Amino acid sequence: MPDSPQIDLNADLGEGFGAWAGAGTDEALLGIVTSANVACGFHAGDPVIMRRVCAEAVRRGVAIGAQVGYRDLVGFGRRRIDIAPDDLAADVLYQLGALDGFARVAGGTVGYLKPHGALYSAAATDAGQAGALVSALLAWDRPLPVLTLPGSALAIAAAAAGLPVVVEAFCDRGYRADGSLVPRDQPGALLHDPAAIADRALAMVTGAGIEAVDGSRLDVRPGSLCVHGDTPGAAEIARAVADRLTGAGVRLAPFVP
Amino acid sequence: MPDSPQIDLNADLGEGFGAWAGAGTDEALLGIVTSANVACGFHAGDPVIMRRVCAEAVRRGVAIGAQVGYRDLVGFGRRRIDIAPDDLAADVLYQLGALDGFARVAGGTVGYLKPHGALYSAAATDAGQAGALVSALLAWDRPLPVLTLPGSALAIAAAAAGLPVVVEAFCDRGYRADGSLVPRDQPGALLHDPAAIADRALAMVTGAGIEAVDGSRLDVRPGSLCVHGDTPGAAEIARAVADRLTGAGVRLAPFVP
Amino acid sequence: MPDSPQIDLNADLGEGFGAWAGAGTDEALLGIVTSANVACGFHAGDPVIMRRVCAEAVRRGVAIGAQVGYRDLVGFGRRRIDIAPDDLAADVLYQLGALDGFARVAGGTVGYLKPHGALYSAAATDAGQAGALVSALLAWDRPLPVLTLPGSALAIAAAAAGLPVVVEAFCDRGYRADGSLVPRDQPGALLHDPAAIADRALAMVTGAGIEAVDGSRLDVRPGSLCVHGDTPGAAEIARAVADRLTGAGVRLAPFVP
Amino acid sequence: MPDSPQIDLNADLGEGFGAWAGAGTDEALLGIVTSANVACGFHAGDPVIMRRVCAEAVRRGVAIGAQVGYRDLVGFGRRRIDIAPDDLAADVLYQLGALDGFARVAGGTVGYLKPHGALYSAAATDAGQAGALVSALLAWDRPLPVLTLPGSALAIAAAAAGLPVVVEAFCDRGYRADGSLVPRDQPGALLHDPAAIADRALAMVTGAGIEAVDGSRLDVRPGSLCVHGDTPGAAEIARAVADRLTGAGVRLAPFVP
Repeated sequence: MPDSPQIDLNADLGEGFGAWAGAGTDEALLGIVTSANVACGFHAGDPVIMRRVCAEAVRRGVAIGAQVGYRDLVGFGRRRIDIAPDDLAADVLYQLGALDGFARVAGGTVGYLKPHGALYSAAATDAGQAGALVSALLAWDRPLPVLTLPGSALAIAAAAAGLPVVVEAFCDRGYRADGSLVPRDQPGALLHDPAAIADRALAMVTGAGIEAVDGSRLDVRPGSLCVHGDTPGAAEIARAVADRLTGAGVRLAPFVP
Repeated sequence: MPDSPQIDLNADLGEGFGAWAGAGTDEALLGIVTSANVACGFHAGDPVIMRRVCAEAVRRGVAIGAQVGYRDLVGFGRRRIDIAPDDLAADVLYQLGALDGFARVAGGTVGYLKPHGALYSAAATDAGQAGALVSALLAWDRPLPVLTLPGSALAIAAAAAGLPVVVEAFCDRGYRADGSLVPRDQPGALLHDPAAIADRALAMVTGAGIEAVDGSRLDVRPGSLCVHGDTPGAAEIARAVADRLTGAGVRLAPFVP
Repeated sequence: MPDSPQIDLNADLGEGFGAWAGAGTDEALLGIVTSANVACGFHAGDPVIMRRVCAEAVRRGVAIGAQVGYRDLVGFGRRRIDIAPDDLAADVLYQLGALDGFARVAGGTVGYLKPHGALYSAAATDAGQAGALVSALLAWDRPLPVLTLPGSALAIAAAAAGLPVVVEAFCDRGYRADGSLVPRDQPGALLHDPAAIADRALAMVTGAGIEAVDGSRLDVRPGSLCVHGDTPGAAEIARAVADRLTGAGVRLAPFVP
Repeated sequence: MPDSPQIDLNADLGEGFGAWAGAGTDEALLGIVTSANVACGFHAGDPVIMRRVCAEAVRRGVAIGAQVGYRDLVGFGRRRIDIAPDDLAADVLYQLGALDGFARVAGGTVGYLKPHGALYSAAATDAGQAGALVSALLAWDRPLPVLTLPGSALAIAAAAAGLPVVVEAFCDRGYRADGSLVPRDQPGALLHDPAAIADRALAMVTGAGIEAVDGSRLDVRPGSLCVHGDTPGAAEIARAVADRLTGAGVRLAPFVP
């Protein structure tokens, strides 16, 4: 008899700043997801928020990941900055160290790294920016997995460097036949119905495959499912996904040991 | 036969930001001092500088201390901010974690904490601000010494909490009979002659005592001597102090084991 | 027959930052108030928000005031910073100039200045901080009124310097018999019922006087009423106040000509 | 008899931040140049510096230009940021307004706009970024010239919009036969000898033409000569250029009326 299937659910957390509380769904999401991508203060997040989210994550057994980004608070890290790779590596180590401090204070540790926003996109396609992330991780004192898109420049560079790579899928996003996401400005980019999103999540996890936007079948076998925390109803959707998965016998657990 | 006397020399390092290189004496001072108070990015310092200074400090056997400050780049941390103690503790942990990351990447670790500028002053007299620093250190995953003024609120609070306390003296500053520093806007506040400063350093370390500004004798027995890095001729003065001490048989070594 | 009474309603606007939209009540409040205290980017507000709020304010005939604050985004300007008066005056001029640019681009101009948060409090009691604001206004190329508390250090210093002073009252705050506000941590500090708040607003404007927290009568004759924009239901309360006033024949109009 | 030739000398000024004084040659350069490109606080410059530089510029009859840049203090504005044109236009207006406030306080006004660093480069080649600058200038309440490279996207877009365009030349930079600058990492990119730089300045101004890096003759007829302020000996070179020009009967005067 095979083991019951298992999957990680990750979400962006701690994305407020000072008096701006962000999506406000941190509390709810921490009760659902198994991995928290915690913003580290460069594009969002501040020390008070980081400390609180780390403490709560450790308390609930949620893995802590470093959601690192470009230094761009006003742009929420969504704008590409042409930063030299060595400078980017230092920026990443700074954010990683700061978050790891809070994780250790809470009795945990940072378990993985996931770039945010424009850095996520840049690391998916630009070898220089991806290489800077890998360089930072190689300098870190223990090997950390990266959480990224399948086939991304970051996935390739990290694997080549011997770092663990975990690929994620988006159960609320439309896919093209080649496995890439439907761009946000095109029809079919986003699923809105919680039940449909939950169905898709289950299909991804069980290996049943999903229907791409052109009607073809697509096999998606993620190491983690990303649920969004910054949209209205985000927690409800995450809850629907989690319930569908556990109802079907899928165990939710961090990919980080 | 007694052991030969030993003292630590500390200096502020890494106080530039981006294209602004700061005093530019980092290189020279790292060849002289035994403890580097490394700015952590809130009032000065940036990830590239922090990484470079940590690497060089570890290479030379110089202890790394977290020079934490208020979040105030434009004010260089010299302006008191009425931040709530819990928020300050989080800010301190953030800076400490970020620096510790770079120290670990370099093969070292952060060995102590020294507040900077207005936070140094606030922690010397204000129990709330001092308590925030102690609270941050108690949350940290290992006990770190604080480097502070003798008799300061921080010294008292840290000792009461069971944290190691190392008191420092300033060989280029005038002292009053009660052991406090002559304020900078008063006569006798600053010594300028390298030989006189070096003499005073030796007198402090050997326990010979120094002459206070009113002519009385003052016994100063520091655990560390602070040399300044941000004045013209800073490296020359530090060199003169180090040479006088070693010439008199004093061993220069970090107070951090 | 006397002129119909007239009053200004002011509210804080544009207090978001980048992706953090703030209270989100900007649109609604701009349809109610007659003066907009627009955050200028140091404690809240960003260029995109400032431009949009200024354009909308000019379109609706709402006066634009410079809501200046300490440079403290993460603290939302709520923490006192011991900044030297000359440096504060420069910070104020910078914010004032930036907002005035947007006001002019929109076809308007900055009509007054109102300090925010900790600077509002500091300017009410500290002659040095109040003096810095007055110094900035005297340097400005035309006299601008300050909007402040009656009897504040700022009111006194501005009047002494020949600057126009407009005093404001808070129709949702409790008052003590001496005319000061009941501190927020004490009973009676805040009124919550929109009808009661609207009653109080009308009593303030017509000179009927209000009941202080100790039951005594208090005469409050403000040049402007402040309505809050950052609480749940803020727009509804502002709407209730405006309706009560206009229903009683009070004309709502900016104090700025 | 022809009028005596006339030229503007421009330099970057006010590029410090807080305790970091920058090149420190502000004072010296203000005694030499006729146009000051004043940093506006996003990539360099702070309110205290801006106020001081504006006051001194007005006192000496030096024209004030807005040296606007990307919001990137740690990168000194030297890193391209993929900011949306509307957001960039708002950022430019913010900087322009802030500087104009200080200029007016000093009895002057902002006379032109010159983008800095990566924004200078982006505006030279990218129609979107250039268009954002033009859009900001068209929104401004009076037409301001742009100071830019001949043939740049900004020059073209500004001219098409009816804005004045002033092109600048660099007397310490090597030129290619097509009029473009030799990239900094190639031989011949920089001239170092003050006498040679001064000779080249004179040749540019009188229309004698210069020798390109391939030996061909190049006609360069700038509306302004840029002298650098951020290199060792910058003030000495600027002085040599100014002396050579005035010694040859060239009048130094701002291009701004």
